[in-house]
Amino acid sequence: MTSLLLTGVAELTSHDPEHGHAPLPDAAVVVESGRVAWTGSARSAPAADASYDVGGRAVVPGFVDSHSHLVFAGDRAQEFAARMTGTPYSAGGIRTTVAATRAATDEQLTANVARLVDEMRRQGTTTVEVKSGYGLSVRDEARSLAVARQFTEETTFLGAHVVPEGTTPEEYVDLVTGPMLEACAPHARWVDVFCERGAFDVDQTRAVLAAGAVAGLRGRLHANQLGPGPGVQLACELGLVAVDHCTYLDDSDVAALADTGTVATLLPGVEFSTRSPYPDARRLLDAGVRVALASDCNPGSCYTSSMPLCVALAVREMGMSPVEAVRAATLGGAEALDRDDVGHLRVGARADLVVLEAPSAIHLAYRPGVPLVREVYVGGRRV
Amino acid sequence: MTSLLLTGVAELTSHDPEHGHAPLPDAAVVVESGRVAWTGSARSAPAADASYDVGGRAVVPGFVDSHSHLVFAGDRAQEFAARMTGTPYSAGGIRTTVAATRAATDEQLTANVARLVDEMRRQGTTTVEVKSGYGLSVRDEARSLAVARQFTEETTFLGAHVVPEGTTPEEYVDLVTGPMLEACAPHARWVDVFCERGAFDVDQTRAVLAAGAVAGLRGRLHANQLGPGPGVQLACELGLVAVDHCTYLDDSDVAALADTGTVATLLPGVEFSTRSPYPDARRLLDAGVRVALASDCNPGSCYTSSMPLCVALAVREMGMSPVEAVRAATLGGAEALDRDDVGHLRVGARADLVVLEAPSAIHLAYRPGVPLVREVYVGGRRV
Ligand SMILES: [Zn+2]
Ligand SMILES: [Zn+2]
Repeated sequence: MTSLLLTGVAELTSHDPEHGHAPLPDAAVVVESGRVAWTGSARSAPAADASYDVGGRAVVPGFVDSHSHLVFAGDRAQEFAARMTGTPYSAGGIRTTVAATRAATDEQLTANVARLVDEMRRQGTTTVEVKSGYGLSVRDEARSLAVARQFTEETTFLGAHVVPEGTTPEEYVDLVTGPMLEACAPHARWVDVFCERGAFDVDQTRAVLAAGAVAGLRGRLHANQLGPGPGVQLACELGLVAVDHCTYLDDSDVAALADTGTVATLLPGVEFSTRSPYPDARRLLDAGVRVALASDCNPGSCYTSSMPLCVALAVREMGMSPVEAVRAATLGGAEALDRDDVGHLRVGARADLVVLEAPSAIHLAYRPGVPLVREVYVGGRRV
Repeated sequence: MTSLLLTGVAELTSHDPEHGHAPLPDAAVVVESGRVAWTGSARSAPAADASYDVGGRAVVPGFVDSHSHLVFAGDRAQEFAARMTGTPYSAGGIRTTVAATRAATDEQLTANVARLVDEMRRQGTTTVEVKSGYGLSVRDEARSLAVARQFTEETTFLGAHVVPEGTTPEEYVDLVTGPMLEACAPHARWVDVFCERGAFDVDQTRAVLAAGAVAGLRGRLHANQLGPGPGVQLACELGLVAVDHCTYLDDSDVAALADTGTVATLLPGVEFSTRSPYPDARRLLDAGVRVALASDCNPGSCYTSSMPLCVALAVREMGMSPVEAVRAATLGGAEALDRDDVGHLRVGARADLVVLEAPSAIHLAYRPGVPLVREVYVGGRRV
């Protein structure tokens, strides 16, 4: 019940409309019972039971990483190196990870998620969504989600990641919408589909989302990553909270996103790690689309867990300002998870915040690659 | 005099020709009296007084960052944000930093260098070159170098960074080659010139290098960063150890670098932070040029201190393989400083090494932005 006053905040990113759009200089924060109790100018800070001087550093909300694939075993470093150098490589891509994940024990999978969640936290991520999708069997999808659930409430059933070997797409969709969903739904909040040419088509995607809805799971999609496609329009038509990747969009896709408020989640680490063209965040922002940034951390297309890198890439490559990129990595991620308790530091928010080793959050883009996360607080407690 | 055996090295990058070109799997390292005493396969490791299991992680030489500008005050975050967003910004660029540096106390400058050297070390940099160049007066250049000398032997007099306000180029070159050199030479190993259109021309560059040589300083150059120019050819003609930036090269520049062995030091953080085209490392490597990677850490064009990010950018953007990029960030940097005691882990090398939070150094590119430096040793002691 004791209140804590953070002083010496050179710049506060609160996303509180009362403070305007720009970060607030010379600020202070009061935390009480794990929640933000007050923010404002240092000179008008109220008294509190205790105070702590962060030493002229910037404070931002903890990052909300709304898209990751942390439940897997093994890595694909050699495949990455081959891709980067244009060298032929005969390994099986995602099949390699599926085989390793199926062969791993629950303890091994748990240790892998723990390692990556810890790594994320040290980089300022305080809320993370975690998908299944490397099991592709009833048993392995269900245990993947049970493992993920130990670390986050934001778990997503992604049985419809890819059609596994030895089944037809039709058979597999029946499995995903039937026994697999039944086994997975108790461990998941969301259902997701990789809606892309070569993965699942619109009808299959509709079927998985509809079955998921019946089981109480809210929908989200991977779409328009590798080329133009109907996934973004479908997400908007269905009123999904978020659709992720959004690399290839036509004008009607952008208009639909703006009209419906479906969040476009951009994953620039993927484009970095696959040497692909980046999505045009500027176009989306200018059209009034809600934009989130997330890591997509996974062993194949993007093995970064770094939200600060995503911010830097969004500024370098995608036309976002530093303020917009930080917003997308915090409040945008919360919007993409339909969460109003995280991603900002308005009064009542969970006191998830990051003290940067910098006087301004601009440094996240200005100083790319530098570990600038100094202190991380979750629910008001330093972790 | 006690020897230490490092075991559990999943992959060792030693740059020892006896181990071939590829990193050595399942390796061990013996350190004695601060030097590498033995490296090889774990199964043939000799006995030692003590042993330490690094737990199945990769070991690389400490990074050698052969190009940085750490002696300054203030930052230019707002200028960076304006550049990235295409917003007009009226501040004075480098003049802002010169004014802040001149106004700073020795203690403030020392604290800034200490902060950045520490930050670099936490990212695996164990040897760093530091330039003056934000003083531009006899007093301020000399004290900049005296400050830098507290942290590294690799200090570089860069009075010829830019012509300061209130002097003509001719007057300024006279100052640089006269009283400024006299005051600075005792604190420096190297002399450097920004040889570029709008900075110093070939004749001025020759004059500064020649005067520096008389004062016992070895030459290096900033050249061909902003456009084609004669700097790279001049560096080769004079037999300089290194020429830095090398973004705009014609075929004769590449041939001259290959012929003379002058190291081309590439600074991809600059291109990242200024949204400029990257140099073509592949072309240089294919021509047989010796290539180094360095950070160019400075508050204007590139405020990263991260050699891991430079490695990742070199792979993503410049056509280097992960192995080539790690080599350029370690052995390449040592070559650029004409040092044979660092940048590799051959027998006799200073035991400067990094244990990565990864089983392979490929992860430096495969996991961009992630702080993968777990443990750093300098002269065999963990720091
Ligand atoms: Zn994904
Ligand atoms: Zn420089």
